[in-house]
Order: sequence, then C-alpha cells, then structure tokens
Amino acid sequence: TNLVFTGLETTIFETMSRLANEHGAVNLGQGFPDVDGPEDVRRVAAEAFISGPNQYPPMLGLPELRQAVADSASRFYGLDVDWKSEVMVTSGATEALADCLLALMEPGDEVILIEPLYDCYLPMVRRTGGIPVRVRVTPPTWSLDLEALEKAFTENTKAILINNPMNPAGKVFTEAELARIAELCVEYDVFAICDEVYEHLLFDGVKHRPLMSFPGMRERTVRIGSAGKTFSFTGWKVGYVTGAAKLLDPIAKAHQYVTFTTPPGLQKAVAYGLQKDDSYFTGLAADLQAKRDFFAAGLEELGFGVLPCEGTYFLTCDVAPLGIKGTDVDICRRMVTEAGVAAVPVSAFYITDAPPNYVRFCFCKRDEVLSEALDRLRAWL
Amino acid sequence: TNLVFTGLETTIFETMSRLANEHGAVNLGQGFPDVDGPEDVRRVAAEAFISGPNQYPPMLGLPELRQAVADSASRFYGLDVDWKSEVMVTSGATEALADCLLALMEPGDEVILIEPLYDCYLPMVRRTGGIPVRVRVTPPTWSLDLEALEKAFTENTKAILINNPMNPAGKVFTEAELARIAELCVEYDVFAICDEVYEHLLFDGVKHRPLMSFPGMRERTVRIGSAGKTFSFTGWKVGYVTGAAKLLDPIAKAHQYVTFTTPPGLQKAVAYGLQKDDSYFTGLAADLQAKRDFFAAGLEELGFGVLPCEGTYFLTCDVAPLGIKGTDVDICRRMVTEAGVAAVPVSAFYITDAPPNYVRFCFCKRDEVLSEALDRLRAWL
Ligand SMILES: CSCCC(=O)C(=O)O
Ligand SMILES: CSCCC(=O)C(=O)O
Repeated sequence: TNLVFTGLETTIFETMSRLANEHGAVNLGQGFPDVDGPEDVRRVAAEAFISGPNQYPPMLGLPELRQAVADSASRFYGLDVDWKSEVMVTSGATEALADCLLALMEPGDEVILIEPLYDCYLPMVRRTGGIPVRVRVTPPTWSLDLEALEKAFTENTKAILINNPMNPAGKVFTEAELARIAELCVEYDVFAICDEVYEHLLFDGVKHRPLMSFPGMRERTVRIGSAGKTFSFTGWKVGYVTGAAKLLDPIAKAHQYVTFTTPPGLQKAVAYGLQKDDSYFTGLAADLQAKRDFFAAGLEELGFGVLPCEGTYFLTCDVAPLGIKGTDVDICRRMVTEAGVAAVPVSAFYITDAPPNYVRFCFCKRDEVLSEALDRLRAWL
Repeated sequence: TNLVFTGLETTIFETMSRLANEHGAVNLGQGFPDVDGPEDVRRVAAEAFISGPNQYPPMLGLPELRQAVADSASRFYGLDVDWKSEVMVTSGATEALADCLLALMEPGDEVILIEPLYDCYLPMVRRTGGIPVRVRVTPPTWSLDLEALEKAFTENTKAILINNPMNPAGKVFTEAELARIAELCVEYDVFAICDEVYEHLLFDGVKHRPLMSFPGMRERTVRIGSAGKTFSFTGWKVGYVTGAAKLLDPIAKAHQYVTFTTPPGLQKAVAYGLQKDDSYFTGLAADLQAKRDFFAAGLEELGFGVLPCEGTYFLTCDVAPLGIKGTDVDICRRMVTEAGVAAVPVSAFYITDAPPNYVRFCFCKRDEVLSEALDRLRAWL
C-alpha cells in the first residue's frame, strides 16, 4: 500500500528541535518565542480552567472570541465581519488550514502554492487529492514572479494558498502583488486561503493588508489568524478563520469532524487578549523589530548574507558568502552539532529544486540567547 | 462543485444543544457531564498555564502524558506499550480518529462501520475516499449480526472502525463478538481502529477488553482514548492513540498536519489525572451507574422501553410503547419544545434505514437535573 502519509519525514521544525535538545544547542530553528505571552492573559485562562465550565463549548467557538475576532478585523483593517456567520475558532492555525483544504479541495482540483512554502501545505493538499501548482518568490528580494503566477492560473484552479506575512521569507507581499493575485482570483473564479498568522509581526512601519480587502475578494477569501503567534503562546493552539458564510459553512463541517471544538478556557483568554489596546500590538512588533535589528547586524558582521525581513520572526540568510562547503542542510547539521546553534535549512520549504544556500533563523528569543548564538557562531566560524 | 462537506448538517449534538438553549430545556442530548471533573486536575492545568512554558510541546505529546497512557494500558489491561514509539497525544479523540482515517484509508479502500455509529465517522471516511461498508448491532439487545459481519469483510477491506463501549447503544461488545472480529481482521489482513473513549464508564462489573488484546491484533490495532470522557472535561480536547509503531508512524504524520500538537498545560494535567489510584476510576463508574439506575427506573415508570446499558453515559429507549405519533426525530423535536427535555434521535446514528423509534438520553447529569427531566416528561406525557 502507498499511503499518503507513509514515509513522510517528521517536520523539519520538530527534527531540528530534537537535534537542538540532544546537542544542547541554542534553538533558533522551530519558530516559537522563548518568553511566554502576557501574564494577565494566562491568568484569565487559568481562572477559566479552575472555575469552569470545562465542557464542550459551541462548535464554532465561544461567542466572545468570535466577536473579538470580528472586532479586530474592523479595528485593524476596516473589514466588516459578521461574527455569527463569518468567524470560526479552531484548534490552531494548522487545523484551520486543514479544515479549509479538506472543505474546499477535491480530487483533481488545482491549488496554487507559493514557494518557499510552509511544510504542512503540500501533504495536506495531496491528502485532499488536490494538485499543487507552484509559483515562487525569489531571493534575495523575495519578489513574486508575476509571469509564472499568471501561467499558474487555469480553469482547473480551485484555490490559491498564500502566507502573508510569509514564513520563511520574512516577506510582506506588496500592494501590487496582492492586487494582481486578487485580479487573477476574480478572473478565474478562484478561492484564496490566506494564512495570515504573522499579521501583527510587522516592522519598519509596514502595514498588513488582508487579501480579503481587495476588490472582488471578500466573497472568495478565507483568512486564518493565530493566537499562538499574536500572543506568544504557540502551545495553545487557538486559531480562527474568517470568511463569507457560504465559504465558512463547509469549513465548519470539516472542523466538526477534525477537532469539533477548542478548549473554552483558552478561548476566553484569547478573547480577552484580542481586546488589548493598540500598545500591546505595536509593542510586540517593536520588541521583535529590535531583536531583528540586533541579530541581523550580528549575522552580517559574521559574514552571513542577511536578506530583508519586513515581518514574521524569521531571518533568512545566504550562507554562500561564508564559503562553507555543502548545502543548507549540511550547514544546518554542522551548525547544530559543531557550533551549537540550530537553524532551519530553507530548502525544506521547497517541493523540489530549492536554492541550496539559504538558512532560516528564528529571532523571537531573549537578547542573551541571541547574543549567545552569535558568540557560538563566531567561535565556530 | 460537489464538495464532500457541503450541504452536510450541523451535528445532531450541536443542533439539539442549540434547540435546548433556545427552549430552556433540560439538555440530555449532547453527551457531556454537567459537573466538571476533579478540581486537583484542574489546578494542575491552571498552574501549568500560569508558570508555562506555553510554547509548542513535542509533536507526539509530553513524555509524561505518553508514559501515563502506556502505564494505564498496562495497569488496566495488562498491555505492554512502549510510550516512545507507540503512544501519541491528540487534540481530542475526534482528531485522533481523523488522523487514523486520513493516515490509513485511501480512495477505494473499504472500511467496515457498525451502525448505529457516531456521526463523525462517515463524513471523514468519505473525505478520505474510503468506501463505507455497514453492519449493525440490533435493538433491543444490540447484538452484532455476525453473519453480516462475515459478509462485510472482502479483499478490499482496509479497516474496521469499532466504538466499544458503544455510543449511542450503551453496548459493550461481548468476548465472543470481539473474538470473531479479531479472527476476521487477521484472516483478511485488516486494520482495526478502536474508539474506546468510554473504556472507564462501565457498569455491573462489566470489564473493558481492548480489541488490541486479542490474538493477532496487537500489530494491526490502534486504540483511541479520551481525557474528556475519563475525567469529565469534554471541552479539553485531549485524546491519545496507542498502536504499533509501524501504524502510529503515518498517523503521527497526519497529526502533524492536522493540529501538530496539543496545549501542554492540559497534557500535564491529564498525565497527573491518569496516575490517580483505582478508586477514582471505580468511583466515576459507580457514580454513573447510580445515575443510570435512577434515570432508567424513572423512564420505565413513564412508559419508555428502556434498553440495556452496560457502559457509556447514554440510555437508549424505545418510544413506541408511549404511543406518540411520529418518528424519533419528531418526538425529540416535540420533547425539546413541548416538554423542555432535549434528547437525541437514534436515527441520526444511521446512514439509511434507521429504526424510527429510539431516542438517546445522556444521564451524566446532577440528580436534580435528572429528576427535573423526569418531572417534565411526566407532565408532558
Ligand atoms: C508547528 S512547528 C513550526 C513552527 C513554525 O511555524 C516554524 O518554525 O516555521
Ligand atoms: C462532540 S459532541 C457529541 C458528544 C458525544 O459524544 C455525543 O453526544 O454522542
């Protein structure tokens, strides 16, 4: 037998985290902050678990969280979202994405994926019987190949899956790129599944513009957000999907059979968190921007070719200038075992024909951890 | 387009809970306790969320929970389970089941389902491209039709999905039934996916015997357990899958792409809970048995044809003796709107050709709630 999930590798993030642990390495591989999110949000969760109820919340999520998600869409992007018919809570953005693909893709449907791509996209697309069609953003500028994009759209295209801000590239799609994607979606009657989990992690005054807000897109776009990323609780696994009722309906059915619901204590806490005032969100981004600047400067000084990073908590670097033999995978393996610093090879984000000379560092770590990583890399180089 | 999840109904449990809320009905529809589980377990969770870390735990689950699950298999069933290769934590038993089906079923594979069946089985089987083949347990005794079972096994059979103890029937499969299922699985080289979430909710001294423990089954069986059911925290969505490493491997890959992981604070608390001494588990069952006895006696007195219930927290009743016109669906609708008591029509657990005269009551409710339900039904009848 030839099961879709047989023989697949454990995700590169898990693999690198395991290696990092084995070698006592500074773990800048898997993307998670090393400082937990706001204590007041944690307290709301803790109290909810103590006082209960701890039974099934509504399948679509607690009303207070769905309202908070809708309010955020209005507050941050001026989007008008009806929480009762257009918002659903999921057990993390990964589940949200699985729900969207299981609901919207059928065997033989083409879906456009943009490389480098997050590693759960492809296996889930394959499991739905969907046919991946690739286009790329290309380093060092990570600009979208618009000609390839146009060619990728066909009458069999069912959906495009876009991660904006983009992991691992640290890219924020330009207004022009988004506008062209939107035009093509409208022209070919295509759904857009927008993984926007890094929406609040933006630097240098760059603003997030949901693809949903472009002309003709409101009715054909679902937008995925993440409390894990927005509040630095990656272990909580609370995500949300926003989309037109007609689209959300089959997605809710998938959710019903995939996890059914999400712990109410965590939902309460996230509802509280989303109501924080703007200073929380701008503070989060400013804090990360300082880390990016510090770490990028250190890497540059060591000879890494640091690529631009407008959002997310990932820095990609060209390792060719270091003059070390081997691919990005070899270099990451040597870095974790010899230098004691874990990163992720960017080739893991490609289906085939990856550029072999980029690595990704996660920089949402305490300053002393970033310093220690730089010291170790300096000693190793 | 003809999406698998389009046009599906919202689960009957959610629908009845919504109706119950609208009509101020006593909700004996959806299966969840109205008293939360142990306070000490809740405190462990609350403390874990406060003190952190609240970041991604390992993809397969916290070692302490995986060990506790393996230890329970040994303690309760004498099963020898290697936690490192044979146990995975999931975001609830629903996710565990989705993972198993997505991993083990491929388009064209037949899977044997036993009616009445839990409502998420069929849509997920369909979404994998699997072909459902039905056999039944038949009221009033809910015994398995062994002749039909034998006919259901073919060379295309990939798996059998069995819920034991069984919702909604309250049935515990007999040793002879399980032995025959096991023989057929071995003969036809078939996987068994065992939804054993009610394993600790057994009455009258009946013991649970995992299908995995039958000759030839260890290597071909995955067993799903649920902290929600075992500790009365249905909202926590913590489940676990136990199975041979070779089987667990593709299931872990599905999990990786479906939710990736489960909140660490809840995992810690469940690990603690599973180490409680036997009195917790026997106490839970004894408490439920008393509720079953009280509620069954009340229903019988009112004229319901109460069916045997050896496990789960559900009582099925023949409503024909009441002499009310209409199907189980009609009667449930009238009960919730007129009597103010929500139950679930058992026909919702059939693909087609359901017997039209059974309803299911959930009895894991406070005694005064069960009394109130009986009073309302009495007044209505
Ligand atoms: C789900 S583990 C991966 C975390 C992450 O988003 C990343 O490292 O890219
Ligand atoms: C997931 S909601 C349904 C709860 C349940 O197991 C039931 O009522 O049968």
